[in-house]
Amino acid sequence: MRVHLIGTGAIGGLYGGLLARSGQCVTAQCRSDYEQVKKYGIRIESHVGLGDWTFKPDQVIYPGEMLETPPDVVLLAIKVTPQCDRVALLSPLIGPKTVIVSISNGLEVENELGAAFPDNEVLGGVAFVCATRTAPGRIIHQAYGHLTLGRYPQGPSLIGTDLVNHWLATGASVEYTFELEAVRWQKTLWNASFSALCTITQSTTATVLGETEELVRKVMGEIYETASQLGHKLPVGIIEKQINGTHRMPPYLPSMTLDRAAGNATESEVIVGNAVRAARRIGINTPHLDTLYTLLKLRN
Amino acid sequence: MRVHLIGTGAIGGLYGGLLARSGQCVTAQCRSDYEQVKKYGIRIESHVGLGDWTFKPDQVIYPGEMLETPPDVVLLAIKVTPQCDRVALLSPLIGPKTVIVSISNGLEVENELGAAFPDNEVLGGVAFVCATRTAPGRIIHQAYGHLTLGRYPQGPSLIGTDLVNHWLATGASVEYTFELEAVRWQKTLWNASFSALCTITQSTTATVLGETEELVRKVMGEIYETASQLGHKLPVGIIEKQINGTHRMPPYLPSMTLDRAAGNATESEVIVGNAVRAARRIGINTPHLDTLYTLLKLRN
Repeated sequence: MRVHLIGTGAIGGLYGGLLARSGQCVTAQCRSDYEQVKKYGIRIESHVGLGDWTFKPDQVIYPGEMLETPPDVVLLAIKVTPQCDRVALLSPLIGPKTVIVSISNGLEVENELGAAFPDNEVLGGVAFVCATRTAPGRIIHQAYGHLTLGRYPQGPSLIGTDLVNHWLATGASVEYTFELEAVRWQKTLWNASFSALCTITQSTTATVLGETEELVRKVMGEIYETASQLGHKLPVGIIEKQINGTHRMPPYLPSMTLDRAAGNATESEVIVGNAVRAARRIGINTPHLDTLYTLLKLRN
Repeated sequence: MRVHLIGTGAIGGLYGGLLARSGQCVTAQCRSDYEQVKKYGIRIESHVGLGDWTFKPDQVIYPGEMLETPPDVVLLAIKVTPQCDRVALLSPLIGPKTVIVSISNGLEVENELGAAFPDNEVLGGVAFVCATRTAPGRIIHQAYGHLTLGRYPQGPSLIGTDLVNHWLATGASVEYTFELEAVRWQKTLWNASFSALCTITQSTTATVLGETEELVRKVMGEIYETASQLGHKLPVGIIEKQINGTHRMPPYLPSMTLDRAAGNATESEVIVGNAVRAARRIGINTPHLDTLYTLLKLRN
């Protein structure tokens, strides 16, 4: 399988590197880390069982460089922000049979890709993984490590099953879902509430939870209600489970909080904004989430 | 009339200075600015019609110093924060007939004074004044200038009428209200919404209003509803009036925003917290205001 990887950050490096390890032919598209990756590859250290290895892509190219033949899969592992034109990034690479796989946070993130490439198969991935690029060409995989893959908008996929099998062969924890958007909502339940609260206040999850578990619970309740009304039946007790799980985590700064602190673009629109817009479309009242979303935008 | 002034900031300096100008005997209690005020008095420049003059108190004392005879009036012009024990400040000064006048922002700020000094008359003042202490012993009165005085919890007051007349004699705009708490709610309608939004986001009123008039309107609506259910009938159209008035103001940073930025104690509890608590007591749902209050506390 010929895989074209866009995004050599923590998620792209890890899951692209695992596909290379499983024997797939992986081309990596790099920007700032081009020289480093071209010369030395990407060093990956997994503290949770996937081993340490160097991922040397078969080919390293710059954005905009054309490929001789279109890849079987484009693995898009970049943040979804209004500042980044994913369609423009993909357009030169996509052949008639290329499958687009987008691993990202957020809701409805595949819509834009499905609309731009209506004849291509689109898959989405939701990663529950704690990994960090600590330097160009260096990734530490600290904790967790579960990837859920599914077809957009839903259903089975032959190449999706292949990808899952390749990842499983490396020891990674991966599963295929028939309900991609439900999984996105489940991750968003945590992500929209904690990322918004931590980012607005530049506080850790522990501070937010210690001082206002009540507000966390209200925001999660609004998201749960919205997902349910959209037909995504999230597990019973998911709010308690996520809150208890966060209590057991060390104080954590969500990526949105770090991105904001560093002055970078954040995924607030696809994580929080899309949750708010979905609720409005179906007439669910989400005043706590709306207020957080407004404050997030105000501080942009 | 012997007036004992506590607080020689912008409001205390201006209204204490005006009472001195009207011929009252004013003692000023100073902390950091003791030397300056003792030697040179307080220089006041009014850009809006009250003139420039130097307010030389008849006596300048330190906090804790006893008075030979209790004053007719203690004019308390300090911020109401949990960090400042107003009862302890007042206790050494109050005689059986001393009237306590507290000029401050916030809701229910007189309750604590009424409970601690049940046999003394308590008056409250709400200042719609734009004045700043630019240095120790120096106050600039930039804009507006209206003071509403009323008896706590409500009703007429002989000494209140006297005070109003003394201030009026200096050219100041002052009125006596029979419904003090309604006036507090009217000011809080603006103050709780803009102070919270500007403080959480460290933005000016112009930024907040330009980017999210919708949220301002929702928060004001919740406060309006709470005040109304408490029996304080605010003027019809007050929300439009305050929003339009704010559109006409230059970009403004509320005092809570400046206090937070400077790392000082803020009046968020009496302005925002007391509005939230009043709504809860009578079962009014104020989710937008609640969220702002929680975020304000989180960032403390």
